[in-house]
Amino acid sequence: MRIDIWSDVVCPWCYIGKRRLETALSTFEHADDVEVVWHSFQLDPGAPTTPVETVAEALGRKYGGGPDAGRAMIDRVEAAAAEEGMLWRHHDSQRVGTMDAHRLLHLALDEGGAELQGRVKEALLAAYFIDARNVADHGELRAIVTGAGLDAVAVDGVLGSEQYASDVSADIEQAQAYGASGVPFVVIDRRFAISGAQPAEVFAQTLERAWNDSHPALEVVGDAVTKADACGPDGCAV
Amino acid sequence: MRIDIWSDVVCPWCYIGKRRLETALSTFEHADDVEVVWHSFQLDPGAPTTPVETVAEALGRKYGGGPDAGRAMIDRVEAAAAEEGMLWRHHDSQRVGTMDAHRLLHLALDEGGAELQGRVKEALLAAYFIDARNVADHGELRAIVTGAGLDAVAVDGVLGSEQYASDVSADIEQAQAYGASGVPFVVIDRRFAISGAQPAEVFAQTLERAWNDSHPALEVVGDAVTKADACGPDGCAV
Repeated sequence: MRIDIWSDVVCPWCYIGKRRLETALSTFEHADDVEVVWHSFQLDPGAPTTPVETVAEALGRKYGGGPDAGRAMIDRVEAAAAEEGMLWRHHDSQRVGTMDAHRLLHLALDEGGAELQGRVKEALLAAYFIDARNVADHGELRAIVTGAGLDAVAVDGVLGSEQYASDVSADIEQAQAYGASGVPFVVIDRRFAISGAQPAEVFAQTLERAWNDSHPALEVVGDAVTKADACGPDGCAV
Repeated sequence: MRIDIWSDVVCPWCYIGKRRLETALSTFEHADDVEVVWHSFQLDPGAPTTPVETVAEALGRKYGGGPDAGRAMIDRVEAAAAEEGMLWRHHDSQRVGTMDAHRLLHLALDEGGAELQGRVKEALLAAYFIDARNVADHGELRAIVTGAGLDAVAVDGVLGSEQYASDVSADIEQAQAYGASGVPFVVIDRRFAISGAQPAEVFAQTLERAWNDSHPALEVVGDAVTKADACGPDGCAV
């Protein structure tokens, strides 16, 4: 079974939703047959590579109320993160762009498949939310993703070029085609879409439903063979 | 979309059912995406390779009433065949075994895929029902299947060995696992089973249903993204 997730590296509900999905997978009987692939989504494409303000300052400026209002918003997502067992330092996080982080996630998928990409995704989210690191800075990015297992030479090749930029765009277009206006956006078996960081139970129920849907019992259509025009060991119906 | 059909070369309703399925496929919008694979089923495993009686005689002996009763049964399946546009000479057909014919159908699938196998299957059915040829005789089999496109050297290799005998057995076991007690037994997308030579409309409806089932629209689970814990271009729900 395949799970496609559209997500941004700086998206608080994406990290919280990731934990909730992991909770659902931890008790899912067929978790070994599940592959998770991460897709790019940019919440704030205009954010700078060199930060000029904290997330709290940016939120207060954008929605009004100043840094205090921004800090109150961060308090609320930090409380939700704490319920999932995560202690964030999101007050220290800075507003930065994520294009390069997404390009490296595409490299990870290419180089090591879903397993490596999953480790790189977790490392980037943890770096941003738990350690308040700058996930736009090339030196930081290099340290984060090589620490998760990506090859340093390949990483430098991507960071020194525009490689995978078109893959990032294609992911975003695919999200739009699905009608996803926000993230996280989770698609199970290309069939069931879960919008937002739903409770673990919603993920668990949808995993079960998708599994049963893709492993149906054989359904017999029409009359039983004994009534139909058929031939068997006892002859042909005539 | 894949269609698996269990069938015997000497089974009248299998040939009639094949025509009815072809009628359904002729108006099916996605027929180009359909692959038909033929599987072995033996109605009469004890039938001889060298014939000793006609089918009419064998039927009359088995079910009572003698050759006249057997001929009446053949009249009825010939009438059903005529409704599908086929003029049979089944009164002249002789009771013979089909193990070698089935082994050659497996060779055809291996050598040329579903397309070649389909041509060989049609050639064998036509030889038996329309031309009343002996589909157990090696010389006849060779002529029939090479005429349909099978390589003569490969055919001789199979006829001179036990090659594909285990594949024939595996097919028969699979039919039993599906609960098929007779043929034709048609399975669409490993999901919908059609027992017997059902009317073309039943095949057509089931093709549509299987297609729609395997190409579902995306179903959104849980709240819409605006109500859920998600982040979008206008910020994160908090």
